[in-house]
Amino acid sequence: MKKALFTLLLTLSCLVSVAVEVNSPSGNLSLTFDVNKVGKPFYSLTFKGKDVIEPSYMGFKFSDGKDYSNWFTIVKVDTTSFTETWKPVWGEVDSIIDNHNELTALLKHVPTNTFMMIRFRVFDDCAAFRYEFDRNSNHAYIKVENEVSEFNLTGDHKTFWIPGNPDSNEYKYMTTPLSGIDASKADGDAIGTHMIVADNCIQSPVMMKSSDGLYINIFEAALSDYPAMMLTIDKKNFLFTSLLAGGAVKGVAAFLQTPCKTPWRTIIVSDKAEDILASKSILNLNEPCKIENTDFIKPFKMVGVWWEMHVPAHSSWNYADEWNLKLAGTDWNSLKPNGRHGANTENVKKYIDFAADNGIDAVLVEGWNIGWEDWAGNWKEEVFDFVTPYPDFDVKEITSYAASKGVKMIMHNETSSSVTNYERRIDSAIDFMKRWGYTGVKTGYVGWIIPRGETHDGQWMVNHYERVTKKMADAGLMLDAHEAVRPTGQHRTYPNLLACESARGNEFNAWSDGNLPEHETILPFTRLMGGPMDYTPGIFKIKMSDYQGGNTCQVHTTLAKQLALYVTMFSPIQMAADLPENYKEHMDAFQFIKDVAVNWDDTKVLEAEPGDYITIARKAKGSENWFIGAITDENSRTSDIKFDFLDAGKKYIATIYADGKDADWFSNPTSYTIYKKSVKKGDKLKIKMANGGGCAISLKPVE
Amino acid sequence: MKKALFTLLLTLSCLVSVAVEVNSPSGNLSLTFDVNKVGKPFYSLTFKGKDVIEPSYMGFKFSDGKDYSNWFTIVKVDTTSFTETWKPVWGEVDSIIDNHNELTALLKHVPTNTFMMIRFRVFDDCAAFRYEFDRNSNHAYIKVENEVSEFNLTGDHKTFWIPGNPDSNEYKYMTTPLSGIDASKADGDAIGTHMIVADNCIQSPVMMKSSDGLYINIFEAALSDYPAMMLTIDKKNFLFTSLLAGGAVKGVAAFLQTPCKTPWRTIIVSDKAEDILASKSILNLNEPCKIENTDFIKPFKMVGVWWEMHVPAHSSWNYADEWNLKLAGTDWNSLKPNGRHGANTENVKKYIDFAADNGIDAVLVEGWNIGWEDWAGNWKEEVFDFVTPYPDFDVKEITSYAASKGVKMIMHNETSSSVTNYERRIDSAIDFMKRWGYTGVKTGYVGWIIPRGETHDGQWMVNHYERVTKKMADAGLMLDAHEAVRPTGQHRTYPNLLACESARGNEFNAWSDGNLPEHETILPFTRLMGGPMDYTPGIFKIKMSDYQGGNTCQVHTTLAKQLALYVTMFSPIQMAADLPENYKEHMDAFQFIKDVAVNWDDTKVLEAEPGDYITIARKAKGSENWFIGAITDENSRTSDIKFDFLDAGKKYIATIYADGKDADWFSNPTSYTIYKKSVKKGDKLKIKMANGGGCAISLKPVE
Repeated sequence: MKKALFTLLLTLSCLVSVAVEVNSPSGNLSLTFDVNKVGKPFYSLTFKGKDVIEPSYMGFKFSDGKDYSNWFTIVKVDTTSFTETWKPVWGEVDSIIDNHNELTALLKHVPTNTFMMIRFRVFDDCAAFRYEFDRNSNHAYIKVENEVSEFNLTGDHKTFWIPGNPDSNEYKYMTTPLSGIDASKADGDAIGTHMIVADNCIQSPVMMKSSDGLYINIFEAALSDYPAMMLTIDKKNFLFTSLLAGGAVKGVAAFLQTPCKTPWRTIIVSDKAEDILASKSILNLNEPCKIENTDFIKPFKMVGVWWEMHVPAHSSWNYADEWNLKLAGTDWNSLKPNGRHGANTENVKKYIDFAADNGIDAVLVEGWNIGWEDWAGNWKEEVFDFVTPYPDFDVKEITSYAASKGVKMIMHNETSSSVTNYERRIDSAIDFMKRWGYTGVKTGYVGWIIPRGETHDGQWMVNHYERVTKKMADAGLMLDAHEAVRPTGQHRTYPNLLACESARGNEFNAWSDGNLPEHETILPFTRLMGGPMDYTPGIFKIKMSDYQGGNTCQVHTTLAKQLALYVTMFSPIQMAADLPENYKEHMDAFQFIKDVAVNWDDTKVLEAEPGDYITIARKAKGSENWFIGAITDENSRTSDIKFDFLDAGKKYIATIYADGKDADWFSNPTSYTIYKKSVKKGDKLKIKMANGGGCAISLKPVE
Repeated sequence: MKKALFTLLLTLSCLVSVAVEVNSPSGNLSLTFDVNKVGKPFYSLTFKGKDVIEPSYMGFKFSDGKDYSNWFTIVKVDTTSFTETWKPVWGEVDSIIDNHNELTALLKHVPTNTFMMIRFRVFDDCAAFRYEFDRNSNHAYIKVENEVSEFNLTGDHKTFWIPGNPDSNEYKYMTTPLSGIDASKADGDAIGTHMIVADNCIQSPVMMKSSDGLYINIFEAALSDYPAMMLTIDKKNFLFTSLLAGGAVKGVAAFLQTPCKTPWRTIIVSDKAEDILASKSILNLNEPCKIENTDFIKPFKMVGVWWEMHVPAHSSWNYADEWNLKLAGTDWNSLKPNGRHGANTENVKKYIDFAADNGIDAVLVEGWNIGWEDWAGNWKEEVFDFVTPYPDFDVKEITSYAASKGVKMIMHNETSSSVTNYERRIDSAIDFMKRWGYTGVKTGYVGWIIPRGETHDGQWMVNHYERVTKKMADAGLMLDAHEAVRPTGQHRTYPNLLACESARGNEFNAWSDGNLPEHETILPFTRLMGGPMDYTPGIFKIKMSDYQGGNTCQVHTTLAKQLALYVTMFSPIQMAADLPENYKEHMDAFQFIKDVAVNWDDTKVLEAEPGDYITIARKAKGSENWFIGAITDENSRTSDIKFDFLDAGKKYIATIYADGKDADWFSNPTSYTIYKKSVKKGDKLKIKMANGGGCAISLKPVE
């Protein structure tokens, strides 16, 4: 043993360690890689000369107990440069530049005579790395207990975080210094906080701000056939280490077969918060589109039989109020209707009419299919069949009515996390959608996963989501996945995955203590870094006491801020989430939702500060119209909007949907004012936002 | 708390406990049921006045920690009698009488105000009970940590057992007193013994013989939506307690939803060992046939490209010798063939020719589909696709060739226990079979289960096997499941499930220290109690040294005993497992395999002693021909066969396939003699069997 160690040290000492450096194209970001005296690979990162990541180790702990993070020697390093411009099928901008320098380090693990490559890419706003294993018979199957990628931060940064939980992202964001992270104090998971991994473990992405003004976001890109990455914090040393979401087998987070590669670990950095929101590096780190014919993918707005199930004393997903039913063996036609079932033919037609009358593309209907009486919380495998409507949902009549009105229908497949059941039935579910002309599907994963022991963010489920995305793509169907793992830019590869939920959505405002007014100023810096969210904005009836006297739940924004969210939270699926009758009381304000685009040729992040405010301007796809959204947190704010981004020489009519002078998210949320103004490039506009307020602006060129 | 206990005791003491008795129709078996002072239900059982089961408690431990085995009161008891004669679709006899008395005891669990029914059925050869829960909203979802059904035996019986392992039944049988059970000493699992549950835990069924001459078999019937039952032994008190096979969730063996019922717990008893083998109680406890049109179900004999992969230095399942391949991404056509691939077109045709020439109904081919290079031991999910042949397996040519010769093809779907993968692909696998005219399928479950954490015998997998059986029935396909949970008589309900493996088959003789000569005298008393086994008898080339010099593996029987197994081990699928070229060297002996039936109108167990010998006579379905099989263990034996069962007044020509005078399973296994003799009812025939020997006889009436 002693001899082996001596030989090892001799081998390592024969190599003169030379740190390798790779800079971003502009030189702003500079990454250094090396292997230390005991063969531990490490990297560090600076931005404009300031330390971002201090020396941080890299490697793995394998499930056989093997520490695969030391006794490496560098066999070979290579650097290359890359520039490409590509066009997303849909997005915030018409085209995206991928400009980065790449460093690959081929490492030999001396004790096992196996090889590992670490690939770094350095963009002007992001450094990223991943691990790669060649096909190797010494290393054919690898069981990973954990990946030990470190992110060694320089100080006690201000941090926006939610607790590490492989089964949920539906938390309020906590804002603390790194040293103040305590996952046990996190608030507000709908599923139950008992899955929190450890007090010092949080989800990625995590957003930080250093005392010297750097904005830093740590996340991952291109998660595929691998568990999602959480982060554990060493609070004394401000050191994050990756922690892979576990699954059914204790001690094995990932089952790998070579050749294989991990997702990218991303560090997005800037001294301007706006740059973080504008970064396209996570998309650039994903594979190009793999869907050949993308014609069926069309960003859309929808209304839905949905919010009415969330508000108090209103509708239900379930048709009857019985309990303890079995999918097979229940005579669903003979159940006694509870009289509150939302997904009935007449009610659905009301939504179709509203969509048709207001240029809304599509209608989503939840609770249309048998099984909702008894669907959640019992870890039950046979819950839904995805093809049998309740007796009062006439699919033939509804779909032909929708077609006659030019309105698309969006399917809903709640799986209740019985994923084995969904996988068995997904082909017939797809057949049903194709037969009745549905154009897209919202999936749901509420509850404990079956296969039991697997988690929402574990490798098995990551593979499931990808499988479903591909199946829907093959069938020409768009997808909106709820309660799935948070996205990591895969919509570049599979643009039929238009949106996910994977965060605490607007729905929490209907039946819990809600989302803090700052919530929507943090989401774009965290959850939305990986892809669009179906947040379901557009709630006009803010206070639940309007449905049920004494109910204290409410949306924690003004009505005007609800409009602004259509711009500040990019998504190619946007729901006008409130009830038609509520919109009919404010058709002047609803005009903005009718007008706003869901797909864009250009985007300008005008102002941003995580936890405080965001102002974004976007140019609609194939149009000269611009839309602006500005939001603030619990504090009122005045925004000076500069119209620098408009075309020179053109005049625009701006319609401004602003908070009323007396507006306040809590005491007077529905006070708003709408006015028009002529603007041109170079003009400025002072916008006053209430506490928890916002402002939406549409700009149309004067013909 | 004290007060609650007092009230409880008061409630219980209000009931005068009166033991309820139910006898079998003949009165041989007598079962007593009662609830003790603390509300614990218990039963006891006698056979002809002798104690079989002393007072034994019943109940559950629920996963919430609740002890559901005391504080019961008897609400109501009922007794009924039942007689019915029914005809199995196939079997050992033409018709089966179900004659039993039933006792139901409705129990109230006082602390939770819930109800449980225990249903007893007492046949002349078997007492059985199961637990039933009505649909009840107090008791909608039940998580069972364990069922605590006791079997309190009267003494230190001689016991035939294999160790408790929820992932394998492929063990040699151990013969010890109850007090000598030590699962850690069990020998011979192919998968690895590390899943043995505990030293004192064994599989059911368990076969016992008491010192006062009672034969007792404890098992279960109609296992469905529930885990398989193992048994733990209290060696001091000779007390077995049920232990349910676990799955992915520690502490929850069964997820139940009311209404529901457990499988039957069966105690088959007689003072004659022959009666144990003749018992039809397990079938009677299963549901009647649920397949409407059973025309497609036809018992059959087959040969197969299979044994040649087991014998040394011969064929391979895999086409190439590469390693670390992925199902997707491998160019299977460009792999370098290893030259040993068994499932090649030419070789398969050889088997088809042999089948056609010898009246064998079907040919099984293993290793025909891509994936075998890299299929086992890596807990890999994407292994097989079940539809893509290797380049040298021309499915079109093979199936049309087989059809032209009137030979059926049997599909092979090895899942490598990646069950999620199989469930995703089973519809296309079935489409493939139907397209190419396959009539049946052999499935396989080698390795660790995916969903990871589930076990072969756990509830999730029990449901899977049933799902596959139903799917195959719907597609008009017969099924032969290997490495699945051992059957419990479900072939009454789904007679397309012709056979299972679920025990240590003949294959172990090809590449391990093999099966002891007594093995086949124990299997009918244990594994076969629940249903037929695809044991693959008929090996004529006994010693593996004939393939590979120095190889010491061998079949542990004489050739004549291999013939006898076709009768002593009933199965509606019988394989002539050896290679055609080996049969061609002994076509005189092979004549028995050609002649023997696989479906029967009548069966007489002439002699039997577990671990020692079995002699059975069977009358072929729709024929006047009888076949007899007689086997012994490692000791030579002379059997006096009395032809009492033959029709009076008829003459038969008996063809006797006996061990040669110098035969011995080890030193001279292929010594046999064949002679004819005229026999009639009442005649006797002395048959001498060698050590590890046997004798097969065919009887045809003289026209």
